Amino acid sequence: MPETSGSNITQRAIAEGLEACLGKPFSVLDHGFVRVVDYMGNDAAIVQAARVSYGLGTKSVSEDAGLINYLMMNAHTSPFEMCEIKLHVKLPIFVARQWIRHRMANVNEVSGRYSVLPTEHYLPEAAQLCYQSARNKQGKSTSLSPEQQEQVQEMLRTDAVQIFAHYAEMLALPNAENASENGLTRELARINLPLSTYTEWYWKIDLHNLLHFLSLRLTPHAQYEIRTYTEVLLDIVKRWVPLTYAAFVEHRLEGARLSKTAIEVIRRIIAGAPTTQEESGLNKREWENLRRAFLDV
Amino acid sequence: MPETSGSNITQRAIAEGLEACLGKPFSVLDHGFVRVVDYMGNDAAIVQAARVSYGLGTKSVSEDAGLINYLMMNAHTSPFEMCEIKLHVKLPIFVARQWIRHRMANVNEVSGRYSVLPTEHYLPEAAQLCYQSARNKQGKSTSLSPEQQEQVQEMLRTDAVQIFAHYAEMLALPNAENASENGLTRELARINLPLSTYTEWYWKIDLHNLLHFLSLRLTPHAQYEIRTYTEVLLDIVKRWVPLTYAAFVEHRLEGARLSKTAIEVIRRIIAGAPTTQEESGLNKREWENLRRAFLDV
Amino acid sequence: MPETSGSNITQRAIAEGLEACLGKPFSVLDHGFVRVVDYMGNDAAIVQAARVSYGLGTKSVSEDAGLINYLMMNAHTSPFEMCEIKLHVKLPIFVARQWIRHRMANVNEVSGRYSVLPTEHYLPEAAQLCYQSARNKQGKSTSLSPEQQEQVQEMLRTDAVQIFAHYAEMLALPNAENASENGLTRELARINLPLSTYTEWYWKIDLHNLLHFLSLRLTPHAQYEIRTYTEVLLDIVKRWVPLTYAAFVEHRLEGARLSKTAIEVIRRIIAGAPTTQEESGLNKREWENLRRAFLDV
Amino acid sequence: MPETSGSNITQRAIAEGLEACLGKPFSVLDHGFVRVVDYMGNDAAIVQAARVSYGLGTKSVSEDAGLINYLMMNAHTSPFEMCEIKLHVKLPIFVARQWIRHRMANVNEVSGRYSVLPTEHYLPEAAQLCYQSARNKQGKSTSLSPEQQEQVQEMLRTDAVQIFAHYAEMLALPNAENASENGLTRELARINLPLSTYTEWYWKIDLHNLLHFLSLRLTPHAQYEIRTYTEVLLDIVKRWVPLTYAAFVEHRLEGARLSKTAIEVIRRIIAGAPTTQEESGLNKREWENLRRAFLDV
Repeated sequence: MPETSGSNITQRAIAEGLEACLGKPFSVLDHGFVRVVDYMGNDAAIVQAARVSYGLGTKSVSEDAGLINYLMMNAHTSPFEMCEIKLHVKLPIFVARQWIRHRMANVNEVSGRYSVLPTEHYLPEAAQLCYQSARNKQGKSTSLSPEQQEQVQEMLRTDAVQIFAHYAEMLALPNAENASENGLTRELARINLPLSTYTEWYWKIDLHNLLHFLSLRLTPHAQYEIRTYTEVLLDIVKRWVPLTYAAFVEHRLEGARLSKTAIEVIRRIIAGAPTTQEESGLNKREWENLRRAFLDV
Repeated sequence: MPETSGSNITQRAIAEGLEACLGKPFSVLDHGFVRVVDYMGNDAAIVQAARVSYGLGTKSVSEDAGLINYLMMNAHTSPFEMCEIKLHVKLPIFVARQWIRHRMANVNEVSGRYSVLPTEHYLPEAAQLCYQSARNKQGKSTSLSPEQQEQVQEMLRTDAVQIFAHYAEMLALPNAENASENGLTRELARINLPLSTYTEWYWKIDLHNLLHFLSLRLTPHAQYEIRTYTEVLLDIVKRWVPLTYAAFVEHRLEGARLSKTAIEVIRRIIAGAPTTQEESGLNKREWENLRRAFLDV
Repeated sequence: MPETSGSNITQRAIAEGLEACLGKPFSVLDHGFVRVVDYMGNDAAIVQAARVSYGLGTKSVSEDAGLINYLMMNAHTSPFEMCEIKLHVKLPIFVARQWIRHRMANVNEVSGRYSVLPTEHYLPEAAQLCYQSARNKQGKSTSLSPEQQEQVQEMLRTDAVQIFAHYAEMLALPNAENASENGLTRELARINLPLSTYTEWYWKIDLHNLLHFLSLRLTPHAQYEIRTYTEVLLDIVKRWVPLTYAAFVEHRLEGARLSKTAIEVIRRIIAGAPTTQEESGLNKREWENLRRAFLDV
Repeated sequence: MPETSGSNITQRAIAEGLEACLGKPFSVLDHGFVRVVDYMGNDAAIVQAARVSYGLGTKSVSEDAGLINYLMMNAHTSPFEMCEIKLHVKLPIFVARQWIRHRMANVNEVSGRYSVLPTEHYLPEAAQLCYQSARNKQGKSTSLSPEQQEQVQEMLRTDAVQIFAHYAEMLALPNAENASENGLTRELARINLPLSTYTEWYWKIDLHNLLHFLSLRLTPHAQYEIRTYTEVLLDIVKRWVPLTYAAFVEHRLEGARLSKTAIEVIRRIIAGAPTTQEESGLNKREWENLRRAFLDV
């Protein structure tokens, strides 16, 4: 009884852009992927829900775009909840642990208690191996030396290979009394698997919560590895709901939040009264952010 | 830009039974309805999600049914979250207030701040008008007398008509200075509308949470009016995911929960040692429930 | 078995500012109130949770303030979830219906099925009675004429009085066969009560979700009546977690969100290249907002 | 600014049983613990919330117990949401991954991006090392031989030691150009840490959701390691809300769910018409469960 069985006729609304890639994996990292399994709704479904709530009618695609922009700008988030997407994702466990912190989603993950896990692990490319930043607790500084990069990759690779070999060995321990029950329980054999091991899950979420997830995990502060996934998700959003995608980029991704003090600083600058960090009331980090966003040519 | 536009070709899985009634209103009460706007997934999607999590393969519809029964029986609820449904519902406000207590759903409701509300109200049929039960704080006793029933309907009807007339009057108050801004603000004109006034919403929920909602609002303890809706929802579940429907009826709707003490009582009875309420350790209500479920012929 | 029984000794952290007003009602509107029933945590609990997650230590109140500002500014919301508050609120039903749209909370509301509801209703003061704005679907324009204000209040008052009288009458309908079961069922007698009727609930929420609720319901777009409640809640937040309150005002309440295009417009203005709405790429509403926030003296 | 600072005076309700152990760690497994950091509410808070919702008054502890039993039995879950608890837990990552599937909670976990993680891992005792069950995909069969147990422990121990040594080595890689930025980024150095590594978090949840978590993770089907934690949590519940604890054990933990068919089988047996599995309509597993629960002496 297959979940998807090629072309079907439906009375439901469709999203042309997603239909074209349904079920096809987008590659991520060395062994990962994201695959759209199913979806509900499209840009028009958001417009329709807004019409219900706010009595806002629209008649053309350009009016739809304006309405979706208005909803995005004014935090009228509930109409975006009316679209839903289901993805099949293969990802390293340490990425999965960041990902699952976003609770407003439905998840079915491969269980290492029920199944023998494939022994595949994520090995970072040399270019990702950098020194720890001293200023930014979650940041990277310059690249390791080429020898160090090779040394790190070698450690990661050989450790993973050794653990995977022991995993297989534990799962094969012979049971002298009952050969049909060979092997240590799967639930304990797996406990030394490294966090770089790939896992898989079905992950289902509504569009509002997906955009919230993306806004947090597409920033430069997010770890590179999860960003490789969220960039693919952003591309999927673009294919699925292009008007919402454009509004999201305009108002959220490439927009900014200003504090009360920052607003006052900008007002003063525009009024022709230049100011310094010390006078501004902003701390150094905030001042630096402001300068970069508004003053650099 | 219509949300649904007749037949489309899709690569997604479909649910035959729902396609046939998509968009068509099922009537409820005197002016209400439930209409399926969209859905995602089917019985096979649940099986597929279980296969991901538990490595449980199936090959036939009968194996699918067995697996879905197993999931339902063992509270493996996450695979049921992989299906989603979106409904358009018209319902009295007092029913909406019970309904919205179920938080794990997405809602877009008509807003009386943005729109002038249609002046339709729910008027109970005479048969629903009963005396308050003295024993059951939420229950009904025998029917009012026919005269009382008529009297109640008359009060409900005339009060609603009068309030609706005043609502229209407030919305039409002439603005001597600006005729384009006639009328009291909609947000205040509506505050005396009765709880029996019909409202509408789009309501989207996953199958697991829908079944939980149904299990709470299909019992005899639920108010008659919301039960008229949940009975329609149950019929929709049957069309959508027939295997899940059967498992839900078998294990939840027509199943029972037994306390530790009740289990012991049944063990004793089966062992041939009849017992009384006093000896049983059950209070009167529990004893009565047990008797009705297991002992009555 | 009283829930609160005066002074107790506890090993838990306390919030001095809240202890002083625990259990005391803050009046709202004509018959409503907000009362703090219980709470968990304080500013230090947020700092402690951040220390767990980010290994960020602090040693003084000024460092605590800086850390809380940093968390607020960077959407590190989870430490704010570590504080919880429980309120007892009395509010008109139409306000309760807006309020309950915020789902991430726990609620116990008085039930009109179980209890006879007190017949108190909200009557807006004359000053609140304005014409509907033609430009803003949820907004108010100028005041009604004094005669119209009186007329509206009269309609609201007499309708409520009449419905309440009928409510009492239905609840008292004599049962000729069983005087202990007099009256129409409460669950139906209440269905014509107006939306202005007061209800009560216990409402419990974590601080992060409370701030989110406040950021949406403290804006000028929120209806006046719910704003009278959220202003009291904001004052309670100030007493409870003063450092968080200050950061919330600075970064959220009196801050602003800028779109990508708005950022570019400000950059151009600062660079000395004044622009018009037409050239800016902003629509009229966005341009107006920008002008008001940054350009007006 | 300490979160907890010894004895404080509060106007809040307290739970005597929890005060006595607040802040003190309960040991779990070889290096783990559970520690109550804070709490809100007690049995009386549940009664009070029920009184609000259902107008149910009580006057004595025995009436409180009856009311709490009634709520538990009838799935009136919202009053239990009015209590909240915050725990500090140290647990192996593979346990944390099962635990975090329960989404209705607030979490602040130590981050391996921000902090260097302590290199402690869970090593199962020999007695836990069993063969994989052939019949139960998540179950254990008989014990490994003593030699195999030693062999497994040796593999787990030496692999963990080696990975931890490499973790330290990667974190210490010298930066020739900037000694203050020695070491591979923490976010990548940690990716090969084993799932048995201990992590820590603050975890906050309401009582209803805690009981739901316990009902799922206290069963024999839950993995032994997470059960060692849930048993401690159950003991904490007993100290915190003893009446709720008793009702939970009676109606949930040691109660049972019966399907429609199982009810019919029991009715037939009681009516004196013994039946076999084949005739019963139950499958083998269901029949076995029924037999064990009701028929065995």
